[in-house]
Amino acid sequence: MHYGNIFSLLKKKFGHEWELYTKHAFVKKLSNNTLLIENFLDYLVQDYLFLIQFSKAWSLAIVKADNLAEMKSCSNTVNGLINFEIDLHIKLCQEYGISAEILNNANEKNKNIAYTRFVLESGYSGDFLDLLATLIPCVIGYAEIGTNLKNSNPSNTMYKTWIQTYSGEEYQNISKQVGILFDKAVETRLGKSFKKTYKWKRIQTKFKTATLLEIDFWEMALE
Amino acid sequence: MHYGNIFSLLKKKFGHEWELYTKHAFVKKLSNNTLLIENFLDYLVQDYLFLIQFSKAWSLAIVKADNLAEMKSCSNTVNGLINFEIDLHIKLCQEYGISAEILNNANEKNKNIAYTRFVLESGYSGDFLDLLATLIPCVIGYAEIGTNLKNSNPSNTMYKTWIQTYSGEEYQNISKQVGILFDKAVETRLGKSFKKTYKWKRIQTKFKTATLLEIDFWEMALE
Amino acid sequence: MHYGNIFSLLKKKFGHEWELYTKHAFVKKLSNNTLLIENFLDYLVQDYLFLIQFSKAWSLAIVKADNLAEMKSCSNTVNGLINFEIDLHIKLCQEYGISAEILNNANEKNKNIAYTRFVLESGYSGDFLDLLATLIPCVIGYAEIGTNLKNSNPSNTMYKTWIQTYSGEEYQNISKQVGILFDKAVETRLGKSFKKTYKWKRIQTKFKTATLLEIDFWEMALE
Amino acid sequence: MHYGNIFSLLKKKFGHEWELYTKHAFVKKLSNNTLLIENFLDYLVQDYLFLIQFSKAWSLAIVKADNLAEMKSCSNTVNGLINFEIDLHIKLCQEYGISAEILNNANEKNKNIAYTRFVLESGYSGDFLDLLATLIPCVIGYAEIGTNLKNSNPSNTMYKTWIQTYSGEEYQNISKQVGILFDKAVETRLGKSFKKTYKWKRIQTKFKTATLLEIDFWEMALE
Repeated sequence: MHYGNIFSLLKKKFGHEWELYTKHAFVKKLSNNTLLIENFLDYLVQDYLFLIQFSKAWSLAIVKADNLAEMKSCSNTVNGLINFEIDLHIKLCQEYGISAEILNNANEKNKNIAYTRFVLESGYSGDFLDLLATLIPCVIGYAEIGTNLKNSNPSNTMYKTWIQTYSGEEYQNISKQVGILFDKAVETRLGKSFKKTYKWKRIQTKFKTATLLEIDFWEMALE
Repeated sequence: MHYGNIFSLLKKKFGHEWELYTKHAFVKKLSNNTLLIENFLDYLVQDYLFLIQFSKAWSLAIVKADNLAEMKSCSNTVNGLINFEIDLHIKLCQEYGISAEILNNANEKNKNIAYTRFVLESGYSGDFLDLLATLIPCVIGYAEIGTNLKNSNPSNTMYKTWIQTYSGEEYQNISKQVGILFDKAVETRLGKSFKKTYKWKRIQTKFKTATLLEIDFWEMALE
Repeated sequence: MHYGNIFSLLKKKFGHEWELYTKHAFVKKLSNNTLLIENFLDYLVQDYLFLIQFSKAWSLAIVKADNLAEMKSCSNTVNGLINFEIDLHIKLCQEYGISAEILNNANEKNKNIAYTRFVLESGYSGDFLDLLATLIPCVIGYAEIGTNLKNSNPSNTMYKTWIQTYSGEEYQNISKQVGILFDKAVETRLGKSFKKTYKWKRIQTKFKTATLLEIDFWEMALE
Repeated sequence: MHYGNIFSLLKKKFGHEWELYTKHAFVKKLSNNTLLIENFLDYLVQDYLFLIQFSKAWSLAIVKADNLAEMKSCSNTVNGLINFEIDLHIKLCQEYGISAEILNNANEKNKNIAYTRFVLESGYSGDFLDLLATLIPCVIGYAEIGTNLKNSNPSNTMYKTWIQTYSGEEYQNISKQVGILFDKAVETRLGKSFKKTYKWKRIQTKFKTATLLEIDFWEMALE
């Protein structure tokens, strides 16, 4: 699956960090069924808190957009997150015995806070591109991880629902659309010679930092 | 139609300003069919630009919300604005011969900028209540105006579509929901004795200013 | 006096609007001593409220800056505004019989709100350049107006203190520094070929809008 | 030294976290001269990057302030940080052989990002109190640590300059002023019965999280 040109460039440039993130021990354990259930449950709770902040970050992207097409694209993501993904997540948690009350009273861990607040602050302090550059590693990273795990054919894993969600057509399409949004947003603002711009350096730094904070998120999930 | 307790209190407190806004000459002319078509067309163009910024303000409300219920409520409004109301507006403009190109190249007039940027800045600088207090006059004001005009039975007006939109069940329900959102948001944060709080003073000032800026918006539409 | 290259380009491009602003009837009346004292007093009150928001906008510029040199430059402006200019303004008001209490309880008029909230929102929604482009018309406009009025040799005007402030060396230097800050900020981010960038279009629109809102501010002062 | 009533309440409530932070191994090592010089140098570099973001957060506090007195107080802190503390820090770094170039090209570590972006995002998403609640643990924490270390009479430590800075009269006074600012800000907005308000809960959570992120900052400095 191809998730856009800009993402491909960034992934190539930060191949080492990208690999540490998408092939993290947590992911491998999900795949080969060695992840401890208590780690998974804890991850589910933190991921719920993450989704709340992530939805806010995508809402901020609507505010920061430059035209109606960008606003529509981001608003579809917000709608998908708030009205479907979060509800699905709450349901999934319930299947594992985690009530809505537990979710709403849970404490965000430091490494969870680190990533989401970095994303939100990038959006507030910066512009649409600064924000997208920090959102992309999560959106497309999960799409890649989903596909990787599916291809590794994890027939016995108890974490199959999770893998199906992120490897499934719906999530893959969302990720592809986000990649296209990013490509267009960069071209509109920076033109064909974007690689020579000051902004391109910043986008790279933002992408790299977000990827490093994603690695920490997995670390947290194994602690 | 009742649009919530907090709104009712504010409307009563600023009854004079509210009347100047909701019974403005522009509104009367819409109703008795004396509004010049060039004024209406100009209003449609400015209102398109307004809707873009208004959608951003409601997106910012998602970011500023304190819980998932508030986020869902605001996200439904964003979805309604970006995916339905704006599209309807573009269609309506086309019926009047205003192309999408004209809309996208139009200049925002000063009094249009004044209201929307005040709303957005209230949201950025303040919190959820500061933002809602400035959004309410527009949302519920149009609902009241729609109902008033419908009741005045304007059978011959060429502006019937506009009146039907805002007096219609769908818009009335949205406005009612927004009123409920505001009531709950105030009670959650300020409690039953909200009238004694420092914040309540600020909410009143914000509501009043937003209403004054709405009056200017109508003035602009008649210029 | 030269206030930087970028400003010169923008002034030339929007020469008509710039003239309407800097040679506005309010300014002429200040110079030839025909301004009604009640208009001046009202202007002083609104300008106090303006300075509060303007100081906030320059503080936001520190947050949006990309390096320590930019932060220092903006922080000097903030310091000058909050610890000197506002205090001088309060003193000047007192000389005219306007107490601090009156100032703090005064209502911001719509056209005052329009400009300051547009500036702040440009800063929040955009980046450092978006913010500077809206601050420049005020800072450098007043410097030009001060110099123009001084050169017209207004020996008898009762508004001499005002003219001396803005034509004086201190204010002129601040304005020159702001012009240099803007030049460097544009070159750092957009390079030598900035005129070909997407961002340059936006900067122009922002500058123009801010100038139009400044004209409205003078209009307000004569109402 | 007393740093205000609100701070005292929060410190008491989160006594365990506060102790983990202010009596952290890093601090002890500073005091008894067992801190490895490479850890200290690394801390100095990260602290430089921290001070940049911290200055931005205090600038945002000016934007979020509700009155001129609050604006002045925050602006004095910004001025102190940007025009004195950062310059002193650069000088201190130079004494240890760390050039300005090294400082400006250094990478912010994840745990550094975590704290500063949490603070900034609290400010952007919330109001003045949300922002102060996250700034206080750093400002007053360092004041307490400075005093503690000074009292432990660390005659031989090579880190004496650092201890003198934070135990010195100037920094102690700043911290006291910040405590007073917080007390007044809470009373103005929440009244005498602030403990019964919804907002008080949020302030507590913010303060606690900021303290936890400060602990992580020390952890980082020992890694």
